[in-house]
Amino acid sequence: MLKAFAFDAYGTLFDVFSVGALCEQLFPHHGVMVAQLWRAKQLQYSLLRSLMGRHRNFWQLTEDGLVHACKSLGLELTPERQQRLMDAYLMLDTFPDVRPGLETLKQQGVRLAILSNGEPDMLRAAAQHAGILPLLDEVISAEEVGTFKPSPRVYELASARMSLAAEEIGFVSANSWDIAGAGSAGLMTFWVQRTTTETGEELGFPAHHVIRALTDLTRWSG
Amino acid sequence: MLKAFAFDAYGTLFDVFSVGALCEQLFPHHGVMVAQLWRAKQLQYSLLRSLMGRHRNFWQLTEDGLVHACKSLGLELTPERQQRLMDAYLMLDTFPDVRPGLETLKQQGVRLAILSNGEPDMLRAAAQHAGILPLLDEVISAEEVGTFKPSPRVYELASARMSLAAEEIGFVSANSWDIAGAGSAGLMTFWVQRTTTETGEELGFPAHHVIRALTDLTRWSG
Repeated sequence: MLKAFAFDAYGTLFDVFSVGALCEQLFPHHGVMVAQLWRAKQLQYSLLRSLMGRHRNFWQLTEDGLVHACKSLGLELTPERQQRLMDAYLMLDTFPDVRPGLETLKQQGVRLAILSNGEPDMLRAAAQHAGILPLLDEVISAEEVGTFKPSPRVYELASARMSLAAEEIGFVSANSWDIAGAGSAGLMTFWVQRTTTETGEELGFPAHHVIRALTDLTRWSG
Repeated sequence: MLKAFAFDAYGTLFDVFSVGALCEQLFPHHGVMVAQLWRAKQLQYSLLRSLMGRHRNFWQLTEDGLVHACKSLGLELTPERQQRLMDAYLMLDTFPDVRPGLETLKQQGVRLAILSNGEPDMLRAAAQHAGILPLLDEVISAEEVGTFKPSPRVYELASARMSLAAEEIGFVSANSWDIAGAGSAGLMTFWVQRTTTETGEELGFPAHHVIRALTDLTRWSG
Protein backbone atom coordinates (compact mmCIF):
# COMPACT_ATOMS: atom_id res chain seq x y z
CA MET A 1 0.00 0.00 0.00
CA LEU A 2 1.15 3.52 -0.74
CA LYS A 3 1.91 5.97 2.03
CA ALA A 4 1.39 9.18 0.05
CA PHE A 5 -0.03 10.55 -3.16
CA ALA A 6 1.48 13.48 -5.02
CA PHE A 7 -0.84 15.18 -7.47
CA ASP A 8 -0.07 17.24 -10.51
CA ALA A 9 -2.06 20.48 -10.29
CA TYR A 10 -2.94 22.00 -13.68
CA GLY A 11 -5.17 19.73 -15.73
CA THR A 12 -5.28 17.16 -12.92
CA LEU A 13 -6.79 18.96 -9.91
CA PHE A 14 -7.61 22.27 -11.58
CA ASP A 15 -9.36 22.61 -14.92
CA VAL A 16 -7.11 24.96 -16.90
CA PHE A 17 -9.79 25.32 -19.55
CA SER A 18 -12.22 26.81 -17.04
CA VAL A 19 -10.68 30.17 -18.01
CA GLY A 20 -12.39 29.64 -21.39
CA ALA A 21 -15.60 31.39 -20.37
CA LEU A 22 -13.76 34.58 -19.41
CA CYS A 23 -11.64 34.32 -22.57
CA GLU A 24 -14.85 34.14 -24.63
CA GLN A 25 -16.35 37.09 -22.77
CA LEU A 26 -13.25 39.24 -23.36
CA PHE A 27 -12.56 37.96 -26.91
CA PRO A 28 -15.90 36.95 -28.43
CA HIS A 29 -15.66 33.99 -30.87
CA HIS A 30 -12.00 33.42 -29.92
CA GLY A 31 -12.37 32.13 -26.37
CA VAL A 32 -11.58 28.49 -27.11
CA MET A 33 -8.58 29.33 -29.28
CA VAL A 34 -7.15 31.74 -26.69
CA ALA A 35 -7.56 29.19 -23.88
CA GLN A 36 -5.98 26.37 -25.90
CA LEU A 37 -3.06 28.36 -27.26
CA TRP A 38 -2.46 29.94 -23.85
CA ARG A 39 -2.12 26.50 -22.24
CA ALA A 40 -0.03 25.06 -25.10
CA LYS A 41 2.45 27.95 -24.94
CA GLN A 42 2.67 27.86 -21.15
CA LEU A 43 3.72 24.20 -21.39
CA GLN A 44 5.99 24.63 -24.40
CA TYR A 45 7.78 27.56 -22.76
CA SER A 46 8.39 25.51 -19.60
CA LEU A 47 10.23 22.91 -21.71
CA LEU A 48 12.06 25.36 -23.95
CA ARG A 49 13.26 27.57 -21.10
CA SER A 50 14.40 24.58 -19.05
CA LEU A 51 16.47 23.36 -21.98
CA MET A 52 17.76 26.85 -22.80
CA GLY A 53 18.84 27.31 -19.19
CA ARG A 54 16.73 30.50 -19.01
CA HIS A 55 14.40 29.79 -16.15
CA ARG A 56 11.43 31.97 -15.31
CA ASN A 57 8.80 30.91 -12.80
CA PHE A 58 5.51 29.35 -13.89
CA TRP A 59 3.48 32.45 -13.09
CA GLN A 60 5.65 34.43 -15.49
CA LEU A 61 5.41 31.66 -18.11
CA THR A 62 1.65 31.67 -17.74
CA GLU A 63 1.70 35.40 -18.45
CA ASP A 64 4.12 34.93 -21.38
CA GLY A 65 1.84 32.25 -22.85
CA LEU A 66 -1.17 34.55 -22.62
CA VAL A 67 0.70 37.43 -24.24
CA HIS A 68 1.86 35.21 -27.10
CA ALA A 69 -1.60 33.69 -27.61
CA CYS A 70 -3.22 37.12 -27.97
CA LYS A 71 -0.46 38.53 -30.19
CA SER A 72 -0.52 35.58 -32.55
CA LEU A 73 -4.32 35.68 -32.81
CA GLY A 74 -4.26 39.44 -33.39
CA LEU A 75 -6.25 40.19 -30.23
CA GLU A 76 -5.64 43.24 -28.08
CA LEU A 77 -4.59 42.27 -24.55
CA THR A 78 -5.16 45.44 -22.56
CA PRO A 79 -3.59 45.63 -19.07
CA GLU A 80 -7.07 45.26 -17.58
CA ARG A 81 -7.84 42.12 -19.61
CA GLN A 82 -4.47 40.66 -18.73
CA GLN A 83 -5.08 41.27 -15.04
CA ARG A 84 -8.51 39.66 -15.15
CA LEU A 85 -7.27 36.58 -17.03
CA MET A 86 -4.27 36.10 -14.77
CA ASP A 87 -6.52 36.49 -11.71
CA ALA A 88 -8.75 33.77 -13.20
CA TYR A 89 -5.77 31.42 -13.09
CA LEU A 90 -5.88 31.70 -9.29
CA MET A 91 -9.54 30.68 -9.23
CA LEU A 92 -9.66 27.73 -11.62
CA ASP A 93 -12.49 25.23 -11.33
CA THR A 94 -11.67 21.97 -9.61
CA PHE A 95 -12.78 18.71 -11.26
CA PRO A 96 -15.82 17.28 -9.42
CA ASP A 97 -14.02 14.14 -8.17
CA VAL A 98 -11.13 16.08 -6.61
CA ARG A 99 -12.54 17.11 -3.26
CA PRO A 100 -14.38 13.82 -2.53
CA GLY A 101 -11.27 11.90 -3.63
CA LEU A 102 -8.89 13.86 -1.44
CA GLU A 103 -11.24 13.77 1.55
CA THR A 104 -11.57 9.99 1.42
CA LEU A 105 -7.83 9.48 1.06
CA LYS A 106 -7.20 11.86 3.95
CA GLN A 107 -9.59 9.87 6.13
CA GLN A 108 -7.59 6.74 5.29
CA GLY A 109 -4.52 8.44 6.73
CA VAL A 110 -2.52 8.66 3.50
CA ARG A 111 -0.44 11.79 3.04
CA LEU A 112 -1.38 14.15 0.23
CA ALA A 113 0.75 16.61 -1.73
CA ILE A 114 0.70 18.78 -4.80
CA LEU A 115 3.79 18.30 -7.00
CA SER A 116 3.56 20.87 -9.74
CA ASN A 117 5.47 23.16 -12.07
CA GLY A 118 3.40 25.97 -10.59
CA GLU A 119 4.94 28.79 -8.60
CA PRO A 120 4.17 28.28 -4.86
CA ASP A 121 1.92 31.33 -4.40
CA MET A 122 -0.22 30.50 -7.42
CA LEU A 123 -0.58 26.89 -6.27
CA ARG A 124 -1.63 27.92 -2.77
CA ALA A 125 -4.11 30.47 -4.10
CA ALA A 126 -5.76 27.92 -6.41
CA ALA A 127 -5.87 25.25 -3.68
CA GLN A 128 -7.30 27.77 -1.21
CA HIS A 129 -9.97 28.84 -3.70
CA ALA A 130 -10.85 25.18 -4.29
CA GLY A 131 -11.15 24.52 -0.57
CA ILE A 132 -8.58 21.71 -0.67
CA LEU A 133 -5.63 23.48 0.96
CA PRO A 134 -6.44 22.07 4.46
CA LEU A 135 -6.36 18.53 2.99
CA LEU A 136 -2.81 18.89 1.66
CA ASP A 137 0.24 17.97 3.74
CA GLU A 138 2.66 19.53 1.26
CA VAL A 139 2.59 21.93 -1.66
CA ILE A 140 5.74 21.09 -3.61
CA SER A 141 6.79 23.36 -6.46
CA ALA A 142 9.30 22.84 -9.26
CA GLU A 143 10.42 26.34 -8.34
CA GLU A 144 12.44 24.79 -5.49
CA VAL A 145 14.87 23.31 -8.02
CA GLY A 146 14.55 26.01 -10.70
CA THR A 147 13.67 23.69 -13.55
CA PHE A 148 10.44 22.02 -14.67
CA LYS A 149 8.87 18.60 -15.04
CA PRO A 150 9.63 16.18 -16.60
CA SER A 151 13.13 16.72 -15.14
CA PRO A 152 13.78 13.97 -12.56
CA ARG A 153 14.98 16.68 -10.17
CA VAL A 154 11.39 17.84 -9.74
CA TYR A 155 9.92 14.38 -9.09
CA GLU A 156 12.72 13.64 -6.62
CA LEU A 157 11.39 16.50 -4.48
CA ALA A 158 8.42 14.31 -3.55
CA SER A 159 10.42 11.74 -1.60
CA ALA A 160 12.81 14.37 -0.23
CA ARG A 161 10.04 16.58 1.10
CA MET A 162 7.92 13.74 2.48
CA SER A 163 10.85 11.62 3.78
CA LEU A 164 9.50 8.57 1.94
CA ALA A 165 11.03 6.18 -0.58
CA ALA A 166 9.97 6.80 -4.19
CA GLU A 167 8.11 3.49 -4.28
CA GLU A 168 5.95 4.51 -1.33
CA ILE A 169 4.54 7.46 -3.30
CA GLY A 170 1.87 7.35 -5.97
CA PHE A 171 2.03 10.13 -8.55
CA VAL A 172 -1.25 11.19 -10.11
CA SER A 173 -1.56 13.22 -13.29
CA ALA A 174 -3.91 13.73 -16.23
CA ASN A 175 -0.97 14.79 -18.41
CA SER A 176 0.50 11.88 -20.38
CA TRP A 177 4.02 13.37 -20.60
CA ASP A 178 3.98 13.94 -16.83
CA ILE A 179 3.19 10.26 -16.27
CA ALA A 180 6.22 9.29 -18.39
CA GLY A 181 8.46 11.69 -16.47
CA ALA A 182 7.33 10.47 -13.05
CA GLY A 183 7.64 6.82 -14.09
CA SER A 184 11.15 7.50 -15.38
CA ALA A 185 11.98 9.00 -11.96
CA GLY A 186 10.80 5.84 -10.17
CA LEU A 187 7.36 6.81 -8.86
CA MET A 188 4.27 4.59 -9.21
CA THR A 189 2.08 6.41 -11.70
CA PHE A 190 -1.69 6.84 -11.91
CA TRP A 191 -2.96 8.38 -15.12
CA VAL A 192 -6.33 10.09 -14.69
CA GLN A 193 -8.46 9.87 -17.80
CA ARG A 194 -11.79 11.30 -16.75
CA THR A 195 -13.79 11.52 -19.95
CA THR A 196 -11.56 10.56 -22.85
CA THR A 197 -9.32 7.60 -23.61
CA GLU A 198 -6.02 9.07 -24.68
CA THR A 199 -3.14 7.24 -26.31
CA GLY A 200 -0.04 7.04 -24.14
CA GLU A 201 3.16 8.73 -25.25
CA GLU A 202 5.98 6.85 -26.99
CA LEU A 203 8.37 7.86 -24.23
CA GLY A 204 8.71 4.59 -22.38
CA PHE A 205 7.37 4.40 -18.81
CA PRO A 206 3.67 3.85 -19.51
CA ALA A 207 1.28 4.48 -16.61
CA HIS A 208 1.24 1.77 -13.96
CA HIS A 209 -2.48 2.36 -13.54
CA VAL A 210 -5.21 4.23 -15.41
CA ILE A 211 -8.03 5.62 -13.31
CA ARG A 212 -11.23 7.50 -14.13
CA ALA A 213 -11.47 9.62 -10.96
CA LEU A 214 -9.41 10.41 -7.88
CA THR A 215 -11.96 8.47 -5.83
CA ASP A 216 -10.58 5.30 -7.52
CA LEU A 217 -7.28 5.75 -5.65
CA THR A 218 -8.55 4.33 -2.38
CA ARG A 219 -7.70 0.82 -3.67
CA TRP A 220 -3.99 1.61 -3.30
CA SER A 221 -3.96 3.48 0.02
CA GLY A 222 -4.66 2.39 3.53
CA MET B 1 30.40 40.60 -42.31
CA LEU B 2 29.74 37.01 -41.25
CA LYS B 3 32.22 34.24 -42.01
CA ALA B 4 29.78 31.34 -41.87
CA PHE B 5 26.12 30.45 -41.85
CA ALA B 6 24.70 27.52 -39.93
CA PHE B 7 21.28 26.34 -41.07
CA ASP B 8 18.62 24.47 -39.22
CA ALA B 9 17.51 21.52 -41.38
CA TYR B 10 13.90 20.43 -40.81
CA GLY B 11 11.44 23.15 -41.71
CA THR B 12 14.24 25.47 -42.81
CA LEU B 13 16.04 23.64 -45.65
CA PHE B 14 13.75 20.63 -45.92
CA ASP B 15 9.97 20.82 -46.03
CA VAL B 16 8.83 18.36 -43.37
CA PHE B 17 5.27 18.60 -44.65
CA SER B 18 6.27 17.23 -48.05
CA VAL B 19 5.60 13.79 -46.51
CA GLY B 20 1.94 14.86 -46.51
CA ALA B 21 1.25 13.47 -50.00
CA LEU B 22 2.44 10.00 -49.04
CA CYS B 23 0.56 10.24 -45.73
CA GLU B 24 -2.62 11.03 -47.66
CA GLN B 25 -2.01 8.16 -50.09
CA LEU B 26 -1.50 5.67 -47.25
CA PHE B 27 -4.19 7.13 -44.95
CA PRO B 28 -6.86 8.73 -47.19
CA HIS B 29 -8.52 11.84 -45.65
CA HIS B 30 -6.05 11.80 -42.74
CA GLY B 31 -2.85 12.83 -44.52
CA VAL B 32 -2.67 16.36 -43.17
CA MET B 33 -3.47 15.30 -39.62
CA VAL B 34 -0.86 12.51 -39.68
CA ALA B 35 1.84 14.84 -41.06
CA GLN B 36 1.07 17.58 -38.52
CA LEU B 37 0.83 15.32 -35.49
CA TRP B 38 3.95 13.40 -36.58
CA ARG B 39 5.97 16.61 -36.68
CA ALA B 40 4.51 17.99 -33.45
CA LYS B 41 5.30 14.79 -31.56
CA GLN B 42 8.81 14.52 -33.00
CA LEU B 43 9.55 18.00 -31.65
CA GLN B 44 7.77 17.53 -28.33
CA TYR B 45 9.60 14.25 -27.70
CA SER B 46 12.97 15.91 -28.37
CA LEU B 47 12.21 18.41 -25.59
CA LEU B 48 10.67 15.94 -23.16
CA ARG B 49 13.42 13.34 -23.54
CA SER B 50 16.14 15.97 -23.15
CA LEU B 51 14.59 17.14 -19.92
CA MET B 52 13.92 13.58 -18.70
CA GLY B 53 17.55 12.68 -19.37
CA ARG B 54 16.38 9.80 -21.60
CA HIS B 55 18.03 10.58 -24.90
CA ARG B 56 17.20 8.75 -28.13
CA ASN B 57 18.47 9.95 -31.46
CA PHE B 58 16.31 12.03 -33.79
CA TRP B 59 15.73 9.18 -36.24
CA GLN B 60 14.24 7.13 -33.39
CA LEU B 61 12.19 10.13 -32.22
CA THR B 62 10.90 10.60 -35.75
CA GLU B 63 9.77 6.98 -35.71
CA ASP B 64 8.25 7.37 -32.22
CA GLY B 65 6.35 10.44 -33.40
CA LEU B 66 4.94 8.56 -36.38
CA VAL B 67 3.90 5.60 -34.24
CA HIS B 68 2.14 7.89 -31.75
CA ALA B 69 0.41 9.90 -34.49
CA CYS B 70 -1.06 6.77 -36.07
CA LYS B 71 -2.07 5.18 -32.75
CA SER B 72 -3.79 8.30 -31.51
CA LEU B 73 -5.66 8.74 -34.81
CA GLY B 74 -6.67 5.07 -34.81
CA LEU B 75 -4.79 4.35 -38.06
CA GLU B 76 -3.02 1.07 -38.73
CA LEU B 77 0.69 1.58 -39.26
CA THR B 78 1.80 -1.64 -40.91
CA PRO B 79 5.57 -2.34 -41.05
CA GLU B 80 5.47 -1.62 -44.80
CA ARG B 81 3.74 1.76 -44.31
CA GLN B 82 6.17 2.67 -41.56
CA GLN B 83 9.13 1.81 -43.77
CA ARG B 84 7.79 3.91 -46.65
CA LEU B 85 7.06 6.92 -44.46
CA MET B 86 10.43 6.79 -42.72
CA ASP B 87 12.15 6.47 -46.11
CA ALA B 88 10.24 9.58 -47.22
CA TYR B 89 11.94 11.48 -44.41
CA LEU B 90 15.25 10.90 -46.20
CA MET B 91 13.88 12.41 -49.41
CA LEU B 92 12.09 15.53 -48.21
CA ASP B 93 11.48 18.35 -50.65
CA THR B 94 13.81 21.32 -50.39
CA PHE B 95 12.32 24.81 -50.37
CA PRO B 96 12.86 26.48 -53.78
CA ASP B 97 15.16 29.23 -52.48
CA VAL B 98 17.54 26.81 -50.73
CA ARG B 99 19.78 25.69 -53.56
CA PRO B 100 20.09 29.12 -55.23
CA GLY B 101 20.71 30.69 -51.83
CA LEU B 102 23.40 28.24 -50.79
CA GLU B 103 25.10 28.40 -54.21
CA THR B 104 25.35 32.19 -54.13
CA LEU B 105 26.70 32.22 -50.58
CA LYS B 106 29.20 29.53 -51.48
CA GLN B 107 30.43 31.64 -54.42
CA GLN B 108 30.95 34.53 -52.00
CA GLY B 109 33.31 32.31 -50.02
CA VAL B 110 31.27 32.08 -46.85
CA ARG B 111 31.30 28.74 -45.05
CA LEU B 112 28.07 26.78 -44.84
CA ALA B 113 26.90 24.23 -42.30
CA ILE B 114 23.83 22.37 -41.18
CA LEU B 115 23.25 22.61 -37.42
CA SER B 116 20.36 20.32 -36.62
CA ASN B 117 18.77 18.00 -34.10
CA GLY B 118 18.85 15.38 -36.87
CA GLU B 119 20.88 12.23 -36.58
CA PRO B 120 23.96 12.51 -38.88
CA ASP B 121 23.00 9.77 -41.36
CA MET B 122 19.49 11.13 -41.87
CA LEU B 123 20.86 14.65 -42.38
CA ARG B 124 23.41 13.49 -44.95
CA ALA B 125 20.81 11.42 -46.81
CA ALA B 126 18.39 14.35 -47.04
CA ALA B 127 21.14 16.77 -48.11
CA GLN B 128 22.39 14.27 -50.69
CA HIS B 129 18.88 13.81 -52.07
CA ALA B 130 18.47 17.59 -52.31
CA GLY B 131 21.77 17.96 -54.14
CA ILE B 132 23.15 20.38 -51.54
CA LEU B 133 25.63 18.09 -49.77
CA PRO B 134 28.61 19.32 -51.90
CA LEU B 135 27.80 22.91 -50.89
CA LEU B 136 28.10 22.18 -47.18
CA ASP B 137 31.37 22.49 -45.28
CA GLU B 138 29.98 20.83 -42.16
CA VAL B 139 27.01 18.74 -41.14
CA ILE B 140 26.73 19.28 -37.39
CA SER B 141 24.33 17.16 -35.41
CA ALA B 142 22.96 17.55 -31.88
CA GLU B 143 23.79 13.85 -31.59
CA GLU B 144 27.40 14.88 -30.91
CA VAL B 145 26.38 16.22 -27.49
CA GLY B 146 23.49 13.83 -26.83
CA THR B 147 20.87 16.49 -26.17
CA PHE B 148 18.72 18.66 -28.41
CA LYS B 149 18.20 22.28 -29.36
CA PRO B 150 17.46 24.71 -27.78
CA SER B 151 20.18 23.57 -25.35
CA PRO B 152 23.13 25.97 -25.67
CA ARG B 153 25.42 22.93 -25.87
CA VAL B 154 24.11 22.24 -29.38
CA TYR B 155 24.53 25.79 -30.68
CA GLU B 156 28.03 25.92 -29.20
CA LEU B 157 28.98 23.12 -31.57
CA ALA B 158 28.84 25.60 -34.45
CA SER B 159 31.80 27.70 -33.30
CA ALA B 160 33.68 24.66 -31.98
CA ARG B 161 33.40 22.74 -35.22
CA MET B 162 34.12 25.73 -37.50
CA SER B 163 36.80 27.31 -35.26
CA LEU B 164 35.02 30.66 -35.39
CA ALA B 165 33.74 33.03 -32.71
CA ALA B 166 29.98 32.83 -32.13
CA GLU B 167 29.56 36.39 -33.44
CA GLU B 168 31.12 35.41 -36.79
CA ILE B 169 28.36 32.87 -37.42
CA GLY B 170 24.86 33.58 -38.62
CA PHE B 171 22.25 31.04 -37.59
CA VAL B 172 19.29 30.58 -39.93
CA SER B 173 16.03 28.89 -38.99
CA ALA B 174 12.35 28.94 -39.83
CA ASN B 175 11.50 27.69 -36.33
CA SER B 176 10.76 30.52 -33.91
CA TRP B 177 11.86 28.59 -30.80
CA ASP B 178 15.14 27.71 -32.54
CA ILE B 179 15.80 31.40 -33.16
CA ALA B 180 15.34 32.13 -29.46
CA GLY B 181 17.69 29.28 -28.51
CA ALA B 182 20.42 30.35 -30.90
CA GLY B 183 20.14 34.00 -29.86
CA SER B 184 20.38 32.97 -26.22
CA ALA B 185 23.60 31.08 -27.10
CA GLY B 186 25.12 34.21 -28.67
CA LEU B 187 24.68 33.62 -32.41
CA MET B 188 23.35 36.25 -34.81
CA THR B 189 19.94 34.99 -35.83
CA PHE B 190 18.08 35.08 -39.15
CA TRP B 191 14.46 34.01 -39.01
CA VAL B 192 13.18 32.75 -42.36
CA GLN B 193 9.52 33.52 -42.86
CA ARG B 194 8.83 32.47 -46.44
CA THR B 195 5.09 32.81 -46.83
CA THR B 196 3.60 33.69 -43.49
CA THR B 197 4.25 36.34 -40.89
CA GLU B 198 4.51 34.55 -37.60
CA THR B 199 4.55 36.11 -34.17
CA GLY B 200 7.84 35.70 -32.33
CA GLU B 201 7.98 33.70 -29.12
CA GLU B 202 7.88 35.31 -25.67
CA LEU B 203 11.26 33.75 -24.82
CA GLY B 204 13.50 36.76 -25.07
CA PHE B 205 16.12 36.84 -27.83
CA PRO B 206 13.99 37.95 -30.78
CA ALA B 207 15.48 37.39 -34.22
CA HIS B 208 18.20 39.86 -35.20
CA HIS B 209 16.90 39.74 -38.76
CA VAL B 210 13.82 38.44 -40.53
CA ILE B 211 14.30 37.26 -44.11
CA ARG B 212 11.94 35.93 -46.76
CA ALA B 213 14.37 33.58 -48.54
CA LEU B 214 17.90 32.26 -48.14
CA THR B 215 18.92 34.36 -51.14
CA ASP B 216 18.42 37.42 -48.89
CA LEU B 217 21.44 36.38 -46.80
CA THR B 218 24.03 37.69 -49.28
CA ARG B 219 23.70 41.15 -47.63
CA TRP B 220 25.50 39.84 -44.56
CA SER B 221 28.23 37.70 -46.14
CA GLY B 222 31.21 38.81 -48.04
